[in-house]
Amino acid sequence: MSLENSRHVEALRRDLSREETGRRLMAWIEKLYPIPRSITGPGLRRTLEWIQERLPDLERREAPTGTKVLDWEVPREWRVREAWIRDPSGRKLADFDEHNLHLVGYSVPVDREVERAELEEHLHSLPEHPDWIPYRTSYYSETWGFCLTHRQREALPEGIYRVRIDSELVSGALSWGELVLPGREEGEILLSCHVCHPSLANDNLSSLAVAVALAGQLGELQDRRWTYRFLFVPGTIGAITWLASNRETVARIRAGLVLANLGDCGGFTYKRTHSGTAWIDRVMERLSAETGTSFEHRPFSPFGYDERQYNSPGFRLPVGRLTRTPHGEYPEYHTSADDLSLVEPEALAGSLDLLLAAAEILEGDDVYRNLAPYGEPQLGRRGLYRSLGGGTEGRERELALLWVLNQSDGGPGLLEIAARAGLPFRRIREAAAALVDAELLVPGAP
Amino acid sequence: MSLENSRHVEALRRDLSREETGRRLMAWIEKLYPIPRSITGPGLRRTLEWIQERLPDLERREAPTGTKVLDWEVPREWRVREAWIRDPSGRKLADFDEHNLHLVGYSVPVDREVERAELEEHLHSLPEHPDWIPYRTSYYSETWGFCLTHRQREALPEGIYRVRIDSELVSGALSWGELVLPGREEGEILLSCHVCHPSLANDNLSSLAVAVALAGQLGELQDRRWTYRFLFVPGTIGAITWLASNRETVARIRAGLVLANLGDCGGFTYKRTHSGTAWIDRVMERLSAETGTSFEHRPFSPFGYDERQYNSPGFRLPVGRLTRTPHGEYPEYHTSADDLSLVEPEALAGSLDLLLAAAEILEGDDVYRNLAPYGEPQLGRRGLYRSLGGGTEGRERELALLWVLNQSDGGPGLLEIAARAGLPFRRIREAAAALVDAELLVPGAP
Amino acid sequence: MSLENSRHVEALRRDLSREETGRRLMAWIEKLYPIPRSITGPGLRRTLEWIQERLPDLERREAPTGTKVLDWEVPREWRVREAWIRDPSGRKLADFDEHNLHLVGYSVPVDREVERAELEEHLHSLPEHPDWIPYRTSYYSETWGFCLTHRQREALPEGIYRVRIDSELVSGALSWGELVLPGREEGEILLSCHVCHPSLANDNLSSLAVAVALAGQLGELQDRRWTYRFLFVPGTIGAITWLASNRETVARIRAGLVLANLGDCGGFTYKRTHSGTAWIDRVMERLSAETGTSFEHRPFSPFGYDERQYNSPGFRLPVGRLTRTPHGEYPEYHTSADDLSLVEPEALAGSLDLLLAAAEILEGDDVYRNLAPYGEPQLGRRGLYRSLGGGTEGRERELALLWVLNQSDGGPGLLEIAARAGLPFRRIREAAAALVDAELLVPGAP
Repeated sequence: MSLENSRHVEALRRDLSREETGRRLMAWIEKLYPIPRSITGPGLRRTLEWIQERLPDLERREAPTGTKVLDWEVPREWRVREAWIRDPSGRKLADFDEHNLHLVGYSVPVDREVERAELEEHLHSLPEHPDWIPYRTSYYSETWGFCLTHRQREALPEGIYRVRIDSELVSGALSWGELVLPGREEGEILLSCHVCHPSLANDNLSSLAVAVALAGQLGELQDRRWTYRFLFVPGTIGAITWLASNRETVARIRAGLVLANLGDCGGFTYKRTHSGTAWIDRVMERLSAETGTSFEHRPFSPFGYDERQYNSPGFRLPVGRLTRTPHGEYPEYHTSADDLSLVEPEALAGSLDLLLAAAEILEGDDVYRNLAPYGEPQLGRRGLYRSLGGGTEGRERELALLWVLNQSDGGPGLLEIAARAGLPFRRIREAAAALVDAELLVPGAP
Repeated sequence: MSLENSRHVEALRRDLSREETGRRLMAWIEKLYPIPRSITGPGLRRTLEWIQERLPDLERREAPTGTKVLDWEVPREWRVREAWIRDPSGRKLADFDEHNLHLVGYSVPVDREVERAELEEHLHSLPEHPDWIPYRTSYYSETWGFCLTHRQREALPEGIYRVRIDSELVSGALSWGELVLPGREEGEILLSCHVCHPSLANDNLSSLAVAVALAGQLGELQDRRWTYRFLFVPGTIGAITWLASNRETVARIRAGLVLANLGDCGGFTYKRTHSGTAWIDRVMERLSAETGTSFEHRPFSPFGYDERQYNSPGFRLPVGRLTRTPHGEYPEYHTSADDLSLVEPEALAGSLDLLLAAAEILEGDDVYRNLAPYGEPQLGRRGLYRSLGGGTEGRERELALLWVLNQSDGGPGLLEIAARAGLPFRRIREAAAALVDAELLVPGAP
Repeated sequence: MSLENSRHVEALRRDLSREETGRRLMAWIEKLYPIPRSITGPGLRRTLEWIQERLPDLERREAPTGTKVLDWEVPREWRVREAWIRDPSGRKLADFDEHNLHLVGYSVPVDREVERAELEEHLHSLPEHPDWIPYRTSYYSETWGFCLTHRQREALPEGIYRVRIDSELVSGALSWGELVLPGREEGEILLSCHVCHPSLANDNLSSLAVAVALAGQLGELQDRRWTYRFLFVPGTIGAITWLASNRETVARIRAGLVLANLGDCGGFTYKRTHSGTAWIDRVMERLSAETGTSFEHRPFSPFGYDERQYNSPGFRLPVGRLTRTPHGEYPEYHTSADDLSLVEPEALAGSLDLLLAAAEILEGDDVYRNLAPYGEPQLGRRGLYRSLGGGTEGRERELALLWVLNQSDGGPGLLEIAARAGLPFRRIREAAAALVDAELLVPGAP
């Protein structure tokens, strides 16, 4: 049964055209890029609506401002109508309508004249990248500010500036999206990405698009072994809000991934779960051995994206994190230079393919038991072995049969056997299927 | 007691002349080389008779054709009177009498004329080694075939060929030899080598000869700690047949080695048991640290020689495999070039010496308990320590005494202590003997 | 509480002037250097008196000759009034008054004339270092001897020599010093150095001086977590005598260090405890990661200084050994060249600083429990986190907070967390203190 599920995912992967997939995901990102998202508010809602158009089973959820969630509280909702600065000559600059990074996220309303010196205390720019606008937020501390290029900032003349931020912080709600693809077995696979960043492409529209495509693919399967749960949440507070109200669900999570930065041209970086030896950690290890691409593994550390929350001591969920280049390790990170040009269609398609490869293992990995454990069973008589002996050993198919037979004592599962044999998981799965057909193997420990 | 046993094996090793031993073993191989062996039949029986001449206590056993053995069945017995091809000009070629590799093992009887095209389907040669005859068998699938040099094959003219194989596949028996050297303790050491290959020298007359010599040496001991069981079996089916009827014996096996390819000039390669941490694995690790020669350790894999059967999930016997160059890793493997010239007398003697060194450890390794565990006992007063202090430390003998005293808390045995100390096992054993004499040490955990 | 203790030790370290400390310790060593020490006798007593002048709480203890101690017996006391040789021309040489290494330790009384040939059997010199006098003793075997430079020895003319050793071996006592600095908790930290060597500076006046300074520093603390026990003992027999009469004390030892050779200009070498994974082993690992200096770690071996006794199977105390260059690994070891010029004031001060750094960890390492384990607690609201998000992550202070929160599930303590985080222990301790203040953390496992 699991072997078939795994084979079905393999078929999905084989049918996928990388080129067309990359183009489709890129088009999605272009559409979503201009929307001014934050951890609450209309931009976030519009983004979730867009996801729902593609994944009609997506449930859109809200938690009202003031709701107690773990150690936190759902903040007020932030809405912006307009925001800009006028210089002494009356010229508009740092206009929110022009680029939504110009306004510090969660800026309180302001409408007054200030000296340049006072204005300076509310400006953010990047001297080392004088043409980029930085991304700044201040969710939990009441203040206001503007981000602009350093070149722009240095050219500001002395004089009186007019500052206008027509925003409001009101009692509203925190929004997120959740899609559940039910499966046969009790366990769940969690896939989580943050959707709160405004016009930043790699972080994190790339992963949003890949997750939507993955959900679409897995939704096409007739029969699934596991339940797949996709979360599209505002960073930190979204994951915390979800965790606060899903204590029973988390007990069913067998594996999970936080997805971020899946569109740049870097290799993969996998960050392990807290224990470092969870099932998903071993799946990722195998995938990096099987794929020829660059694939770095890092130990868990308690900072980064929402894996921080999932791996906190009270939860310790087996959730790792998959990125291409991690946050803070590419110069464009959290600046206006993380734009559409940073994302490659091929990288997006490759990320989707890797996640399907992971699903192929998750669906198919299981423990089997050799029914003829005393000595080797005679494979030749069952048509599973070359009849003519004496030549140099070694066809991969036969090796896989021997590995599965020798290791299936109720201990290691197929993934572990693939790792010990140094053979692709698919080869081991196929060997298991042939041995089950030959009635030499049954699922389950003794 | 064990210490004495170990000392006796050391004495055997010291008395062995490497040169004379090498010459003797080489002469044996020359004698056995021409016999046309297979997994059953007269050639195999003749080989076992020869072993019995050297080891009179050898028991020759047979299992009748059709006996159910684990998942297998004892095959029919194969006998060949003559086998050859006559080319269109009447010239005989691929004559079994000339070289027994010419005939595919277990070929069914044939006596007819065939076109060259049909004949081609039954021919085997090695384009990459045009002067060598390959070795091929077809034990479990009824067919026939001839092996010849590629040069010969390419010179075959068009026309009608006469093919004659005067063989028969009859109800008979599978033969093997078994020698038991009884010991004081309950446990057994298994030494197994395959004896079914025809004129191939390194694989496996080399190990047959080394095993016969080893059995002779160990047989000379007055008192043995362990029972040593030597198996001379046809590959795969022989080991399976033995396992099928020795369920009680296998429960007593504490360590074992499959022996193969012990005559070529390569270094040693040891293949670990299934667990990788069995006693014999640690013995071999120590030996490779003590001997200066090249010594590679490999993890278990479920293909190779009869270690496959001994390590199958139902048995999981602690049996590793010792070879010099492993099968398939020298170009002459399973060809006519694996002839007498491939085997070196010195390599044979060195292999025997290594096996005796292993026996020296197996006989002597035991757990001891320090009777004066609080602080160091005063060795000087017992004549075990230099009286004049202050010079640079370090004589190996004293270090060994201190290591044995410090480690003998009922946990690690002498082998493990030797490994931790980085000292030769013999040195540690001698220290233990001196401490037992001084009544500072007794065998056994607390 | 422990956090405060650790902070107090840090303050001690910060207040220490390395230069002044080095000068003070060097002056002590110069004072102690000429005293003719042995494992018993007046020189040893004078040394202990000197320590007591600096550490008034030091207890001076004695065990009478003949006392049974573990497997040993307290030897007779050795006293020397004079010792010399007169050559045939009447010239005095190897005069004990001139250099106390000239006389083999524990030499029996002699007063007679001998031929040069007989004398030679009682002489020790170093051909490879012809200008150095070797250090030799013969505590447990009655003999006599002189040590001299090889150049001197080679110039000895034929003839009759007068030998005079006015020594006595009498019923007396073995002396040692013990200082206990009581602490709040039940456990003890043992610091042990040997004090039996005569005019040898690095081995071991260097460590004697460092230990006296360390005891002085730790004695200044108002409140200590652990009891610190300093032993100033004759090598081997002193440690054995102490162990024999302190069975209850040893049960309280949580960590310990044998100190030796702490004055030469080499890097540190730490020798692990028997288990290799004791608390002190992990403390030393962290210190070597935090300090930039050369720091080698070695496994336990049952020879060296008194760690041999503390780690014997009956005790297995978690006592490692800290040296700079280990015994026998510098050419001047146990010769007259291990004199004042071998010891560097800066090295002495650096050794003291390292031991204080170890105490800083020992006092402060504890297991804590996160009181808000579900998700991350909101640090911003508690003033523990930067309010403005979006910039590049990473200030060490915040990382430390997140590490402590994430890891404090009752498992790893602060030292282990520092190791996993790759952050200095002090940083982790400060984070823990801030979290305790914020009521997010409490000591103790659940």
